[in-house]
Amino acid sequence: SRQWVERFFFSFLFELDSSCHFGIWMLDYNVPGGKLNRGLSVIDSYKLLKEGKELSEEEIFLASSLGWCIEWLQAYFLVLDDIMDNSVTRRGQPCWFRVPKVGMIAVNDGIMLRNHISRILKNHFKGKTYYVDLLDLFNEVEFQTASGQMIDLITTLEGEKDLSKYSLPLHHRIVQYKTAYYSFYLPVACALLMAGEDLEKHLDVQNILVEMGTYFQVQDDYLDCFGHPDVIGKVGTDIEDFKCSWLVVKALELSTEEQKKFLKENYGKADEECVKKVKELYKVLDLEGVFAEYENNSYQKLIKSIEAHPSKAVQAVLQSFLAKIYKRQK
Amino acid sequence: SRQWVERFFFSFLFELDSSCHFGIWMLDYNVPGGKLNRGLSVIDSYKLLKEGKELSEEEIFLASSLGWCIEWLQAYFLVLDDIMDNSVTRRGQPCWFRVPKVGMIAVNDGIMLRNHISRILKNHFKGKTYYVDLLDLFNEVEFQTASGQMIDLITTLEGEKDLSKYSLPLHHRIVQYKTAYYSFYLPVACALLMAGEDLEKHLDVQNILVEMGTYFQVQDDYLDCFGHPDVIGKVGTDIEDFKCSWLVVKALELSTEEQKKFLKENYGKADEECVKKVKELYKVLDLEGVFAEYENNSYQKLIKSIEAHPSKAVQAVLQSFLAKIYKRQK
Ligand SMILES: [Mg+2]
Ligand SMILES: [Mg+2]
Ligand SMILES: [Mg+2]
Ligand SMILES: [Mg+2]
Ligand SMILES: [Mg+2]
Ligand SMILES: [Mg+2]
Repeated sequence: SRQWVERFFFSFLFELDSSCHFGIWMLDYNVPGGKLNRGLSVIDSYKLLKEGKELSEEEIFLASSLGWCIEWLQAYFLVLDDIMDNSVTRRGQPCWFRVPKVGMIAVNDGIMLRNHISRILKNHFKGKTYYVDLLDLFNEVEFQTASGQMIDLITTLEGEKDLSKYSLPLHHRIVQYKTAYYSFYLPVACALLMAGEDLEKHLDVQNILVEMGTYFQVQDDYLDCFGHPDVIGKVGTDIEDFKCSWLVVKALELSTEEQKKFLKENYGKADEECVKKVKELYKVLDLEGVFAEYENNSYQKLIKSIEAHPSKAVQAVLQSFLAKIYKRQK
Repeated sequence: SRQWVERFFFSFLFELDSSCHFGIWMLDYNVPGGKLNRGLSVIDSYKLLKEGKELSEEEIFLASSLGWCIEWLQAYFLVLDDIMDNSVTRRGQPCWFRVPKVGMIAVNDGIMLRNHISRILKNHFKGKTYYVDLLDLFNEVEFQTASGQMIDLITTLEGEKDLSKYSLPLHHRIVQYKTAYYSFYLPVACALLMAGEDLEKHLDVQNILVEMGTYFQVQDDYLDCFGHPDVIGKVGTDIEDFKCSWLVVKALELSTEEQKKFLKENYGKADEECVKKVKELYKVLDLEGVFAEYENNSYQKLIKSIEAHPSKAVQAVLQSFLAKIYKRQK
């Protein structure tokens, strides 16, 4: 599948005005390089929904297109997120807005990435019965993600660092909106639409995938602190960045008043000593054990929800998603 | 009509999550305050298309909604444009991204304004036969505007000021994409869709409106230099800002080699003396006379195109647009 997905990237490039070298450069810089997980999972899911029937060339093409749309959506969010977070690097290279001559033009480039999705949908899906549902789906998921960003940006507002605002419900809300809808629900929803399903009848699928996305982000938060930099491919900085991580939320929940005070004094500081102190507290509170338990409970709950689903094909889609992330180390 | 349009703004505010005070503040800061011309013209156009038939409450509501969607689209572009241009004020108050605690969160706020449009369309137009055409229309116009922005941003790239790139075709292309589609074509296209028309059959209307938008922008460029600050409500800075204005393009066209050199030395400098010198050259080249001739020719051509249109109702829409801007002083 990966080969297919990569091939189509280049065919899409040529849909751009060929005079627009800047646009091609921008797409090429920002879109590949990720793991393509989101894009690939549209095809994988669609195959499972077709229960082993051979896919036609057209079906593969359409599913790959939707996969790419999700990658573009992700690229669009990341380009703008890096501006808002004033980040330095992304996927091992400077953030797009830091490339010389790009600067704040990156805002418009982000918009162009988003608009590219609508154009692909119009060029390849207009006329399909599910075309309008695809438009609604991408609009809805974009809105949810932007809402998640807003909650995230407001709670981590520069100069108003206040650890007492951090709680499990807040963490869950940010993760659900900012990550889970577009990373987990969207690929499956695309596949369901292609298979002729009505999304309104699959709210249970949405709920399960949002829970899976939450579980995925909790792992991400865990690995940021306890994962091995060589394995996860980066050095985590959630503690320095005052992130509303699952770990700090759990730590606050389990701390005595004294430990809370200690945490407030050391969380969100760039100082190496402070980071070390926070990590020590995490050890004292046995967050590794707490996480292991969370992971087990989440897994059991997800398996149960999946098994309760009436369709074997949908079960297979959800199980394949879960298998990809359960006990992941990176 | 204005009353209606303003009333609906508040009804839309309540569709937002009521806990989201930040969102309300952001909308309230960025959306009203303009002249509402784009928004109002949906209702005006729709009335003319209905040839005097009384509009129902629902029709007024729907046309106002679309009017507001255009105002939101405009607010979205302006919020992001001010970031990219590093502007200071907008409509007499600091640009949104300069408001304390907002900063680069303004990027996400822009996105939220755009997403709000999709939500309004879904809430009030889903089920209408023209719903999918509305989505396509807003997507297409957004893409055209972002493309215009891209051309504009690339040609005025900081550190690469090169007057020899400026030409009438380039000016026309920037204006057409960046301004004309969303300001002139979009309101009429919305009204046409509401009236049950097929936009593919109205490419002539699109062409006329794009030409009208170009004429409007040439006036804007002219007034920036020759209009009275008290009347136009601001002090023009196109010369200082190295803008690809119609005036500088015409000046380049009419200049001797020597005058061109003079222009290159003085255009795009913040220095008052340089600005004065440029304005003197504009006088020498009689750009006022050149503009008067352009205005006459444009008007005659537009009138002719409009009169060639088969539908009297469509003619009325286009004439009312033209009447609003012909020989405007502000
Ligand atoms: Mg970030
Ligand atoms: Mg961020
Ligand atoms: Mg992380
Ligand atoms: Mg500007
Ligand atoms: Mg600009
Ligand atoms: Mg102007």
